[in-house]
Parts: sequence; structure tokens; C-alpha cells
Amino acid sequence: MSSAIDLNCDMGESYGAWTMGNDEAVLDFVTSANVACGFHGGDPSTMRKTVTAARDRNVAVGAHPSLPDLAGFGRRTMQITPQEAYDMVVYQVGALAGVAASQGTRLHHVKPHGALYNMAAKDAALAQAICRAVRDVDASLVLYGLAGSHLVSEAETLGLRAAHEVFADRSYQDDGSLTPRSQPGAMIEEVGASLAQVLRMVQDGVVRSVSGRDVPVRADTLCIHGDQPNARVFAQALRDALSKAGIAVRTVPQA
Amino acid sequence: MSSAIDLNCDMGESYGAWTMGNDEAVLDFVTSANVACGFHGGDPSTMRKTVTAARDRNVAVGAHPSLPDLAGFGRRTMQITPQEAYDMVVYQVGALAGVAASQGTRLHHVKPHGALYNMAAKDAALAQAICRAVRDVDASLVLYGLAGSHLVSEAETLGLRAAHEVFADRSYQDDGSLTPRSQPGAMIEEVGASLAQVLRMVQDGVVRSVSGRDVPVRADTLCIHGDQPNARVFAQALRDALSKAGIAVRTVPQA
Amino acid sequence: MSSAIDLNCDMGESYGAWTMGNDEAVLDFVTSANVACGFHGGDPSTMRKTVTAARDRNVAVGAHPSLPDLAGFGRRTMQITPQEAYDMVVYQVGALAGVAASQGTRLHHVKPHGALYNMAAKDAALAQAICRAVRDVDASLVLYGLAGSHLVSEAETLGLRAAHEVFADRSYQDDGSLTPRSQPGAMIEEVGASLAQVLRMVQDGVVRSVSGRDVPVRADTLCIHGDQPNARVFAQALRDALSKAGIAVRTVPQA
Amino acid sequence: MSSAIDLNCDMGESYGAWTMGNDEAVLDFVTSANVACGFHGGDPSTMRKTVTAARDRNVAVGAHPSLPDLAGFGRRTMQITPQEAYDMVVYQVGALAGVAASQGTRLHHVKPHGALYNMAAKDAALAQAICRAVRDVDASLVLYGLAGSHLVSEAETLGLRAAHEVFADRSYQDDGSLTPRSQPGAMIEEVGASLAQVLRMVQDGVVRSVSGRDVPVRADTLCIHGDQPNARVFAQALRDALSKAGIAVRTVPQA
Repeated sequence: MSSAIDLNCDMGESYGAWTMGNDEAVLDFVTSANVACGFHGGDPSTMRKTVTAARDRNVAVGAHPSLPDLAGFGRRTMQITPQEAYDMVVYQVGALAGVAASQGTRLHHVKPHGALYNMAAKDAALAQAICRAVRDVDASLVLYGLAGSHLVSEAETLGLRAAHEVFADRSYQDDGSLTPRSQPGAMIEEVGASLAQVLRMVQDGVVRSVSGRDVPVRADTLCIHGDQPNARVFAQALRDALSKAGIAVRTVPQA
Repeated sequence: MSSAIDLNCDMGESYGAWTMGNDEAVLDFVTSANVACGFHGGDPSTMRKTVTAARDRNVAVGAHPSLPDLAGFGRRTMQITPQEAYDMVVYQVGALAGVAASQGTRLHHVKPHGALYNMAAKDAALAQAICRAVRDVDASLVLYGLAGSHLVSEAETLGLRAAHEVFADRSYQDDGSLTPRSQPGAMIEEVGASLAQVLRMVQDGVVRSVSGRDVPVRADTLCIHGDQPNARVFAQALRDALSKAGIAVRTVPQA
Repeated sequence: MSSAIDLNCDMGESYGAWTMGNDEAVLDFVTSANVACGFHGGDPSTMRKTVTAARDRNVAVGAHPSLPDLAGFGRRTMQITPQEAYDMVVYQVGALAGVAASQGTRLHHVKPHGALYNMAAKDAALAQAICRAVRDVDASLVLYGLAGSHLVSEAETLGLRAAHEVFADRSYQDDGSLTPRSQPGAMIEEVGASLAQVLRMVQDGVVRSVSGRDVPVRADTLCIHGDQPNARVFAQALRDALSKAGIAVRTVPQA
Repeated sequence: MSSAIDLNCDMGESYGAWTMGNDEAVLDFVTSANVACGFHGGDPSTMRKTVTAARDRNVAVGAHPSLPDLAGFGRRTMQITPQEAYDMVVYQVGALAGVAASQGTRLHHVKPHGALYNMAAKDAALAQAICRAVRDVDASLVLYGLAGSHLVSEAETLGLRAAHEVFADRSYQDDGSLTPRSQPGAMIEEVGASLAQVLRMVQDGVVRSVSGRDVPVRADTLCIHGDQPNARVFAQALRDALSKAGIAVRTVPQA
């Protein structure tokens, strides 16, 4: 279906004296960086360092806004109104846009983080509020969201370019959703199987579900996890496999 | 010396369920609003409401960045490095710029808040870091700082337009600095004396110091305190006195 | 059914420079104070002042622990594990117990705040975790929870004394639960009707539901809202009505 | 001078998803653990885990209260009043005492953290406020502070038992104060020199200053840094050296 894919990674999630992930190592392999904006990680100094590191490697800089939950790393579902979601996304995207401007670059995309990402994937009103926030700050930004979810469909309805995100290490259900982590078989731990899944998603536009069916999926961008021990090894294997298959690795173009 | 002055007021300092000040009442009298950016007050929703209220009255919207100290309302001195100051100002100005963009307007100026304002007035390195942050985010922004202080001189050195801020209710020393609040005679409580001080500062470019000398001072903008009971009454009296003296009230033009 | 009731009020919900409620006014009318512990309101200095004000009036001091959500005032549901609930309740109860000890008094009860209160009322595992936390810090503390809810039943199962809380200004369903605020008729705004409901709950152990049935309810303590304009007037009317009916007003005895 | 010393270590400074230090490794070598209380590190769950780990190894549990500065890890000087210091120490010591009680143990000491420790060492009013806070919560707690500083002298004046803290890796001035880190020779990096300094301090009650004088010092407790790569190796070497010299390692007895 496609001859190119974007590789994205969550970054800049250190906070003050605490470090997380290995951003430098992963930056050599990805084409888009999702930078934490202070609500789940990423103090202002970390944001600056992360933006400059991405800029120096020509990696596209995106905002990674979160629910306001430092202690829970933005992973805990919170019941917020669409208006609250709008306001917190505007704030965080604006803050990172300020950092980017100060470092001579600009934002390329926005990918909601953790619980906000998962909540918005299933909740159209929340997804719409987030996408309106992004559009109202800068309508040229690309919205990264779970492939086939409300996040990407609401973005497209509002006229934003959307990047459908897929996963190499997660299995899929017949309806195209991810197998919940609480269920067996949710994670794909074998590297060969992960690579095969990615190639099929990019080349054929399908993913083999846990029940064995080929389910259509659109793969604009693939999430690399930088906080795992073998992140660099997997990223290299992935780039090799994509290269061998003639699939270009490049970021999603802006509208 | 001048036939015009800007009236500015700190605003949007409510936070979540807590309210502060009476922004609506004061907005009718000022020409510039300094909007809290979340570090000492001003959650994202309050920021949006404050920006739209100012926009609707053609009041210039500025950022009011602070030290990160919610519990202390940004009033407690903290020992930060110039780099930390740079990063926190970039973050907060960017956040409010995002809010402004989302509401169809844009920022006009930046005025540091509380302890950050006072620290930078006396510390050239800190002042320079703050001014660099403002310039690097948007070089057209006006820097509001204590008249004659390092804040305004560093801004001018960096090519920013600076607005020298004066006070109606504070007395001055022979060197042009404010009398510390801990000293007797620091506050001017009589309205007539306040108004007279303002008129002399604007018309003659001088202020009568506590020792009785006429000290030169540049008065581009005057701070109105919106959280005081008689704020509206004082603001009206001030506007009347300025009008009678033929002094225009308008915001400081951008560079 | 009973010849006495406790009147409790949430207090100490100011934070730093922001004030909330009118604690001093209400303290004259209640027998128990639920003191915010820093997670939704109540900085350490406010906690001290609130504890001493309650102590000086012989009002029982209780902890009012919350989800960690200053910006949302603890009113937003968050998906937390029972272990997280346990840990945050232990922390907050301990903090207020420290404040009480430092002011020469000690804690009498614990009443969860806002979303945590509502979540635990319906979720037995969460309720149990909260009650275990209270018991593990101090088994003599009384647990205040919604009458008939999981909060009080889990407390009793664990051997804690529980105080069943009722409301004067909320209507009840046939199953004894509160009518959700989103439904019509949820609030009882007429003072006479409020007082009548309270008297029936205390004297007869029943409440007339919205469908007109008499539903059994246990009324150990009644919540007074101190942040409402007429709080003092209502509190006085309530005390008069209770006095006239021969119902004593006193706090719930510890186990 | 003495035939025993306590070894203490700052612990539990992880926060949410972020980890810091290697508490488990160091717990085998120390006799006192200073547990972060949430203001610079140490969320409620981390506090519980740290307290149980220390309890299980019979390591004395102490509170490690800080200025409220998560982003700065409590290392930035803040201008607070003695009353604010009192309130924040009461809050944090109470919180950890609650955690200790819930895990079947109790607090043994309090050691202020970072900037609060350094500020109080030099500021008698601040030191007194901190010591009063500790005494008012629990007068049996031992106050750990810089040897010879205001922290320990104010504690003793108030009737608290004080533990004079010394350092193995820091050089001393002629007046018994630590050489500021900004000056050359502040750190003692050679292990043998560190061990020799400790032995002299414990056995002879003196330390050789940078200018070569023997300065009297009281060494009740020695700080081990758990966040350094060779923490475990140094701790083992220290224990061996102390054992060989016949110096017992045990915590400071309570009053």
C-alpha cells in the first residue's frame, strides 16, 4: 500500500534530577520525536535539550501533551471535560512551540500521551476537543493517533493531516483495535514476528489479527519504545528490514 | 516628557476552584493585561478566559511568567541559574502564546512576576537570560520591567523594546529605586498623593524622592493592582486625572 | 431512631494565596471539621491554622484526604489502584496527624474528599483499601462515608467505627443512594424541606425518596457546606430545629 | 573520642515512574535511612516501599523533609519564613510517621534535605523553627544536622537529641565548615584519604583542614551517598576499615 513509513518515539520524559529513556541512542533511528511538555514528564530545561537534540539530527519535533499527572506519569485515566482537554493541549503545545521557536525550529506534529491518547482513541468528543486545540494553535501540525481511532478521524474531519499510528510489538483484534495488555498474547515479544507484522502493515495495508484474519490497517507511523533495554537493537533491525524491503523511512509530510 | 502612558494590571491569577482578583472590573480601565501562565497561578482554562476577556476589550495581552511556586504565589525568592530562568520563561511565554493563537489573538508583551521580577531588576545576568528568552520566542514582544532596572536595560541591549514601569502607590529613593516595603513611608496611601506622583512622572519625567529630591524616572507604563478592594475606584480616579491633564492612555507600541 | 447527630463540614481548603470558604463562620455550628490535607487544597500553613481553630472550639478534627489533583480540586475521577489509594490516604492522614500533634491535639476521624469519596462509595475494593489505610495509621479513627455505601460497610468489616453521612440538600433514590446531580430534583433548595428531611432521618431513620417511598437510612453525621453564601444562616436554622426537636448535636464517639 | 558511629543514607528519592539511587544495595551497609517525604522526591508508594525495606533490615527510619521543589530536587535555596519552615517540616514528618505506623514501625530521626539542610545550618531562626517542628510532632526524634552547625545547636537547646553529621568525601575549613563545592579541593576523591579522615574524626574527634590544621569535630553519624556508582564498594571498604579499627557501627540512640 505504501512505500514509506515514519518512525516515532516518545522522548524528553526526564524530569528535574530524574532521567528516563535513552533519547540520544534512539534519535539516530527515528524520524519523529514526541517531546513531553511538563504534565507527565519534561521540565522546561529537558524540553530545550530534547528539542535541540532532535533538531540537530533533522528529526521532526512534535508535542506529546498529557493529563496533568506527574506522579502517575500521565498513565491514569482521569475524567476531564472536552473543554479541559482543549485547554491543557493548547497550553502544552504552545509551551513546546515556544521552546522550538527559541531554538530556531518549529513543531511538526502532536501526539497525545498515555491515558489521554487511549481515552481520546475511544471518545469522539474528547478526540475532537484535542484536535480543535491543535488546529487552533497551528493548523499545519500533523495529528498522530491510533490507526483507525477517533483521534485520527476527528483530526481529518477538522482538516488536520492525521498520521495513523501502528505498533510492532502489540497484537491486533479483528476490529483493528489493539489487544488489551491484560489479555494473553497482547505483546509480540519475538523480534522476527514484530518485523513481519510491520512489513505486512506497510506493504499490504493489513495486519494478521490474533484470530488469524487479515484486518485492514493504515500505517503512517510506527511507535518505537525508547525506554526498553534493547531499543537500539530493535530499531536497527527494523531499519535494516525496512531498507531491504525497499521501504523508505521518513516523517509524515505536513499539510 | 511624555503625553501618554500605558496602564497595566496583573490578571488571570485564579487557579482551578480558587478565584483571585476582580479581572472583569479592572479590564475596563487598563490598556495592558499581564496574564499568569500556570507557575504561580493561572491554570490553562483561566488563561483562556483571561485572554479572551482582554481581547474582547482591546486590552493588550502579555505573559506574566513566574518562578515555579504555586504554594508561595511566586513571591518567594529562589536561587535559580540564568539558564533555568531562560527555560522557564520560554515555556510560559510559549504556553500563553499558544492560548492567544487559539483565541485568534497574539501576545504583545512580557512582564515577569513577583520574586522573578524583583530578582531580575537587581541581577543583570538573570535579567539578560529572561530577555533572551523573550527575544528568542518572539523578538517583537515588549519587555515590561522596573523603570531604570537591569530588566529594562538588558532588554534594550538585546534589541527588545522595553517599557519602564512605575508605581503610583510606592515611594522612591534618591537613586530611583522603590523604598523597600519594610521601611516606613514605602506605601503612598493617600489617593491625591498617588495621582500627583503619577502626573509628575509622566509630565515632567521626575519623581519626588522620600528625601525630597526630584529624581529622573521614565514612565512608560503604570501598574494597577486589581486585587485591592478599591481597585476600580482608584483606576477611575486615575483615568480622570490623566484625561484632565491631557495625557493619553494607550498601550506601549511594539517595536 | 437516634437522639443525636454530628454536624460536619469540609474545611481548610484554601491554598497559599487563595482562600476558599468561610471556616471561621461555620466552626461555631459544627461538631466535626474535615481538614484538607494538601492534595486538593490545604497547604501546610492552612492545615495548622484550621486545626488550631477547630481545636479552640472543641470541634473534632478529621482528615479529608483526596486524589492528587490541585487543578481539579479533587473532583475529577481518576483510575487508581487500591494500593495507590492506600498509600495516598496513609500519607495525608499521617500529615494531618502530625499537624494535630504539633498543635497539642489529635485526629478523630477521616472523611475522603470529592471524587475519592464518590468512587469508594461504589467500589468495594477501593473502599477497603482506604479503610485499611485509616486502620493501619490509627485504628481509633472514625471513618466518615456515605450512609449505606461500601465505604462504611468496609470500615465496619475491618473493625473501624463508621459514621453514616447524610445530606440535607440532596434528594434520595429508592435504593437509598443520592439522586445524581445531573438529574432534576437532585437538590433540595427549600430550607424547610431540608430541615424536615433531616428530622425524619434522625428521628425515624428514614428518608422520603423522590418516588415517595420511605427508605431506611442511618444518620450519624450530616454534611454542612461551608462555601455557600447562606451557610451560616442555614446552620443556625438547622441547630434551632434540632434543638427544638430535642436532638443533641455532638460528634460521633470514637471506638 | 568515640567507639561507635552511625552510617546514614538518603533514600526513597524515586518519584512515580522515575527511579533514583540504589536503595536496596546500600541498605545492607547503613544503620539509618533518611526517607524522602514527597517534596523533593518520594511519592507515597515509594515512601511505603522504602520504609518496609529499611524496617526489614533493622535500619532506623528517619524523615528527610525538603523545600517544596520537585523540579529542582530540593536543591535550590528559597526564601521562606521560619513559620513556613515549621509548617512544611511538620507536614512531611507527619506524613512519613503515618507511613511508618501503617507498616508497623516508627520514626527514629529527622534530617532536613538539600537546600533546607544548608540554609538551616547557617540560619539560627530557620534551624530553630525546624527543630521546634520536629519536637512538636515527636520529642523523641533525633535531629540529624551538620556537625557544629545551628541545626544541631538549636536542637540541643530545645531538648532534642542531636546527631552531628560528618562527611567522608568532603574537605573541611579551619572553622570546621565544609569547603564549598565551588572551591578546589572540596571533594576528597581518593578512597584511602576518605577512610583516613573518617577514622580520625571518630577516634580523635578532629579533622585535618585544607590548611593543615587539626580542627575539632564531633562525628555521630556519617553520610553515605547511595546514588553514586561505587556506593556499595565504598560502603563495604568503610565498614571493613571501621571494623578493623574496633569502631562499632550503630544508629544514634533516641533520647
